[in-house]
Amino acid sequence: MSTSAAAVVPSRPAPVVLARRVVPGVAFDPDDDRVARAAWSRLAEPGDVRARQLVLERGAGSALRRVLAGAGQARWRARLADLDPARDLATVERFGARWIVPGDDEWPPALAALGVEAPFGLFVRGPLDLAAGTRRAVSMVGSRACSNYGHSVAASLAAGCAERGITVVSGAAFGIDGAAHKGALASGGATVAVLACGIDRIYPRGHDQLIQEIGRVGAVVTEIPPGSSPTRWRFVERNRLVAALAQLVVVVEAAHRSGTESTASRAGKVGVTVAAVPGPVTSPTSYGTNRLLRDGAVCVTSAMHIDELVSPIGTAAAEAVPDARPKAPHDGLAPDDLRVYDALPVRRPAPVESLVTVAGLEPPVVRAALGRLELAGLARRAGPGWLRAVPPRAGR
Amino acid sequence: MSTSAAAVVPSRPAPVVLARRVVPGVAFDPDDDRVARAAWSRLAEPGDVRARQLVLERGAGSALRRVLAGAGQARWRARLADLDPARDLATVERFGARWIVPGDDEWPPALAALGVEAPFGLFVRGPLDLAAGTRRAVSMVGSRACSNYGHSVAASLAAGCAERGITVVSGAAFGIDGAAHKGALASGGATVAVLACGIDRIYPRGHDQLIQEIGRVGAVVTEIPPGSSPTRWRFVERNRLVAALAQLVVVVEAAHRSGTESTASRAGKVGVTVAAVPGPVTSPTSYGTNRLLRDGAVCVTSAMHIDELVSPIGTAAAEAVPDARPKAPHDGLAPDDLRVYDALPVRRPAPVESLVTVAGLEPPVVRAALGRLELAGLARRAGPGWLRAVPPRAGR
Repeated sequence: MSTSAAAVVPSRPAPVVLARRVVPGVAFDPDDDRVARAAWSRLAEPGDVRARQLVLERGAGSALRRVLAGAGQARWRARLADLDPARDLATVERFGARWIVPGDDEWPPALAALGVEAPFGLFVRGPLDLAAGTRRAVSMVGSRACSNYGHSVAASLAAGCAERGITVVSGAAFGIDGAAHKGALASGGATVAVLACGIDRIYPRGHDQLIQEIGRVGAVVTEIPPGSSPTRWRFVERNRLVAALAQLVVVVEAAHRSGTESTASRAGKVGVTVAAVPGPVTSPTSYGTNRLLRDGAVCVTSAMHIDELVSPIGTAAAEAVPDARPKAPHDGLAPDDLRVYDALPVRRPAPVESLVTVAGLEPPVVRAALGRLELAGLARRAGPGWLRAVPPRAGR
Repeated sequence: MSTSAAAVVPSRPAPVVLARRVVPGVAFDPDDDRVARAAWSRLAEPGDVRARQLVLERGAGSALRRVLAGAGQARWRARLADLDPARDLATVERFGARWIVPGDDEWPPALAALGVEAPFGLFVRGPLDLAAGTRRAVSMVGSRACSNYGHSVAASLAAGCAERGITVVSGAAFGIDGAAHKGALASGGATVAVLACGIDRIYPRGHDQLIQEIGRVGAVVTEIPPGSSPTRWRFVERNRLVAALAQLVVVVEAAHRSGTESTASRAGKVGVTVAAVPGPVTSPTSYGTNRLLRDGAVCVTSAMHIDELVSPIGTAAAEAVPDARPKAPHDGLAPDDLRVYDALPVRRPAPVESLVTVAGLEPPVVRAALGRLELAGLARRAGPGWLRAVPPRAGR
């Protein structure tokens, strides 16, 4: 089970399903907000702003009654024949999933940033509480056809995030998405997969096991009603949820004209920071990420940076930086000290006056620098003159 | 010879060397500005702001007369014994080099940005006119211990710059510097090497041939008087010239705590844009460049970007972008068209009403989209219904 701080949902009561026929020929109660929102999730595609506007203005139930009475857009009425939200909610429950709507404790507050583009509700499967679990979250996205570099960076960034208690959100696709989910799972962290199909569908099929595992320890999420297939359009709109469920979107690797561009632009629109991982300029699979960096995306190179970006200022844990170059004796010397150190001979001792000439510094400055260099073990007296000293290795 | 647009200097008259003993015991004319500046280049180290301030305020000759009369800082007087600018200028001339000072036609106007840190003058060897040759120039810097990636990117960026008539400035060091110079030379372009030692010295020795070649077709430049060795301090101060001689500094590859940090910070101070080439986050030799990107450096991935950054807006030549992903039929479709395309069946034709239901769009929207898709070869009529069509490959 997850070792992260994200809360786990206790078994909750079954969704309220009222089978009263309050509208002739309709097997559900449109005045139940939860049921009405489930109905809307089937009547209107993601991105149907008009439907969402109506629900915001009138409430889901009242808006639904209008459609049931033959008003509203033809595209909604065209889907009335198959409408049965009570059956949908029962299907979802049978599948071990739940339907959460705005106002529920588990509803992620961040989704409010989507405004009229917010989903009617979310079908969720898994023990992760979506509100608590996305309080510190990063969305990792990128190419399906990623390179080994992208795959390993996504997995290790996600593992580092998991260790820091940051939830990793992604889309369960091949490539970067899968590597990110797997990296988080491998470190026992929290991860959220946002699907573009019904909660009872698996897409892509090759990620059957992965999606099942996320549903067992994290959360699988979708706004699409059960039984529905993914479409290109639903993938595009799914990206807005991936973006809005986190404080930061990190594009790990992306080629030219990549689908991740849409996630990045949706993130920008809802005020979520967009970051990219730099990659070799010689690699086509880093073309998109390097372009994002050129266009102003934040450059992310480690889980620590992600932690800084998703955490309140000053609360992220520091990490050691790699140090490719061995520390040289003169590293960190002040300018005057460096010039005197440069001027010190190795073999024949030089008097202060000669050091003044060579270093081009005033005599008091040279004498003060010699004192500091002597203390640091970098200079030593030799009769009336001075020599460069080699500092002891240990402890440096 | 250079095929670039940078002008070439005609053979010029020998520097004026007046051997009159106007000051007792001194074999030169301190009132000759050119000679006085050569004297100052020996009396005061680079970075000696006080000396430069004095020269700015009183003029080089008058300031020099004060030192010759026993006034001024002891560090300057300490170097009077060896002072012979007439001999220095003769040495330089014998070596085929010239001494240029502010006010000369060849003096690069950009150096004015250095203010009180500007050099007293520059020793220059090679046919490239420094003023004309640095009008569109990029400084490429980076680790001496670079990776193969850094080496090949530096060489190919420099070659691309050379082809675009952009002068490549660097420090003739091993690693990135050398790769940049060689890339420019290989494309017959203009390149400038800025040394931290006398113009008659070669450092590093292993770049003897490279520096000779740059002196033959480009320009080798230094502010350090002849016969002088490089020091760590002079390397640090040399970096301000590398930065100021270009419109853009590109850090190609740099490890943690790299010397290129100083070049980047000097560039920032004189108003020169700092850019960095992204690299793998897994590579220690890209640690410094990726950090620069995080700290706000411009991300540079091709010679075209460099061209854009050193050229007046709109004058840089465009280049083709690599396209890693084959263009799919639905790429670039407007949202409504994409949703209808998604809804189109492949085998059994669907009537418009069914497409309205599946796509969740109004009937007129669906009909208009079908018209556009049909024109694009993406939809076709089949009896009373519609099918998805596969567009012809050629020409797409």
